[in-house]
Amino acid sequence: MTQHNFSAGPAVLPVVVREKLSQALAPRTDGQPSIAEVSHRGPVFAAVAEELNERLRRLMGLVDDQHLLLLHGGANLQFAWLPMTVASGRIPAYLTSGYWGEKALAEARRIGPAEEVGSSKAIGFTDVPEMGHLPERCAYLHYTGNETIHGVQFERPPVAAVPLAADLSSEFLSRPYPYRELAFAYAGAQKNLGIPGLTVVVIRQDLLDRSPDTLPNYLDYRKWVNSNSMLNTPATLAWYTALETCRWIDSCGGLAFFQKRNRERAQRLYDVIDRSDFWSNPVAGHARSVINVPFFPADAKRSPDVVSKAESAGLLGLKGHRALGGLRASLYNALDNAAVEILIDFLGDYERRYG
Amino acid sequence: MTQHNFSAGPAVLPVVVREKLSQALAPRTDGQPSIAEVSHRGPVFAAVAEELNERLRRLMGLVDDQHLLLLHGGANLQFAWLPMTVASGRIPAYLTSGYWGEKALAEARRIGPAEEVGSSKAIGFTDVPEMGHLPERCAYLHYTGNETIHGVQFERPPVAAVPLAADLSSEFLSRPYPYRELAFAYAGAQKNLGIPGLTVVVIRQDLLDRSPDTLPNYLDYRKWVNSNSMLNTPATLAWYTALETCRWIDSCGGLAFFQKRNRERAQRLYDVIDRSDFWSNPVAGHARSVINVPFFPADAKRSPDVVSKAESAGLLGLKGHRALGGLRASLYNALDNAAVEILIDFLGDYERRYG
Repeated sequence: MTQHNFSAGPAVLPVVVREKLSQALAPRTDGQPSIAEVSHRGPVFAAVAEELNERLRRLMGLVDDQHLLLLHGGANLQFAWLPMTVASGRIPAYLTSGYWGEKALAEARRIGPAEEVGSSKAIGFTDVPEMGHLPERCAYLHYTGNETIHGVQFERPPVAAVPLAADLSSEFLSRPYPYRELAFAYAGAQKNLGIPGLTVVVIRQDLLDRSPDTLPNYLDYRKWVNSNSMLNTPATLAWYTALETCRWIDSCGGLAFFQKRNRERAQRLYDVIDRSDFWSNPVAGHARSVINVPFFPADAKRSPDVVSKAESAGLLGLKGHRALGGLRASLYNALDNAAVEILIDFLGDYERRYG
Repeated sequence: MTQHNFSAGPAVLPVVVREKLSQALAPRTDGQPSIAEVSHRGPVFAAVAEELNERLRRLMGLVDDQHLLLLHGGANLQFAWLPMTVASGRIPAYLTSGYWGEKALAEARRIGPAEEVGSSKAIGFTDVPEMGHLPERCAYLHYTGNETIHGVQFERPPVAAVPLAADLSSEFLSRPYPYRELAFAYAGAQKNLGIPGLTVVVIRQDLLDRSPDTLPNYLDYRKWVNSNSMLNTPATLAWYTALETCRWIDSCGGLAFFQKRNRERAQRLYDVIDRSDFWSNPVAGHARSVINVPFFPADAKRSPDVVSKAESAGLLGLKGHRALGGLRASLYNALDNAAVEILIDFLGDYERRYG
């Protein structure tokens, strides 16, 4: 039976990327080192790093004063690193549309004062929040582009006269996006850019210039800019995987291709959920995530049974996040359209039998 | 021509680990997700995490009050994270035997006062340093077990009546080691434990108890202890590679096997260097690294030519670190004995032709 991987991350890789990785790592009779065994400062890896930087900058459409960094630590480290760097004497503002936005805000508040200028918590994170007044001397406005757990997505960046800082992990590279409007952006690679261990960060020069001289070298973005993201040994295999993923994205037609495909199939799934009396998704239409679709059976206690029967049918990774329960289908670029159709059939079948 | 990989890190992997990785990542006709594509909280990866923790603890001989953490960020992040956590109101002391020890001390001094209680810098880092007086209220004594660049190794941990903190990156798992005497230890995986992106940290309960409540959640070791190193998405493929490497170490006979083999072949190489009038290594005999052997031709300007001719002969990764120049042979566990013999032949040949 064919299996389909709806995991929220680590997530499905393109078949061709698995092939490339498998071939790159296979032992060779002549003993040639694989890409995972060579110095990050040698010519073989330098070519990977250069092409990865070039392709990513182009896919994102970055402009000259935006620095692209390839870091360790995951998006979670950025929750703290960003306010440590740019908040000094200013107040960061946060728009909260789900679990991850709350985490980012909580971490900022361990660094210093931070204001929540909007939250959709009172309505169970079923919409993007209205934005209230920004504080005087606002450091930046932070938002979570796509809430991986609650399935809430900003259609486009909020409009504000302060620097925008975006957690884009689960929507990164899923569509053309106005990255050039952002002063700061970050995304873990384990959604649409390969395997965990690599975090993409974009920081604009004006925010970089606010870096205090008092942080550890490791937490000084300027040191990472000046070392081309090689202040220490990078996660070289994650970089290589990211490069092969970018090549694959380009070969498919770039972000516009995925935007169209991702929208259409997410809409197919939402339509099935909306037409059903058994399945439901509570998020307001305009804020529904194209990437992560949480959904619930009429009787919440049935969720484990649904997950189990889905697994038996080859549909993997549908268990909802422990913070929310229910089910969740993550529809990243590398997922086949066929998987979505099979999921839709499964949902109809389950409803007919048990609904 | 067969190639041999003397890279200092990322470094040579065991052939069987490359095989396992290649097989694990190869696309499957039934669409089964690879180990790099499944949730870190699901049962498939949980089994990897559990076995990795169990094997590492056993190889290191850890005792109950030592917590084993598997983190992001490389050893470099630990340079800052350690003093941020345990230095409050106490003075960290540093023994400096090379480049990395100096980096660790410099980072500690960005956090707060730190004392260098011994350095072999005046003699060009050609020996381990004598230890001076420890400060009153000493937070810990930090040393670098093996200096990857200068090729200086502590035969065993220094003796001191304060908690010992060791950077063990390049000597990690190269021999049985009294890990249980250490209050803190850390090592990047990209030497003897697989691929970069994973950092092993050991922290003893008494040091953990000193954690201040003011740090970001991400930089609170207690949060990592309580989450079994899954405060955020781990670098799952690096964990998997580490597990396969531990299995391989165990299958070879454990650390005692590698201690004997590593010692014997390093001694063979040092003997050749010492008997030569052309090649030299300046480090005092008792402090010579069993793992990283820096060496120099009589005429330093010849170094690039040596590196180039070595590469033509299939001997890769011998270029010395930019901080020291010359050459360096890194003899990690996964390097074949044959590689050392071929290097020895090459050195003799080069000396006969150009010496």
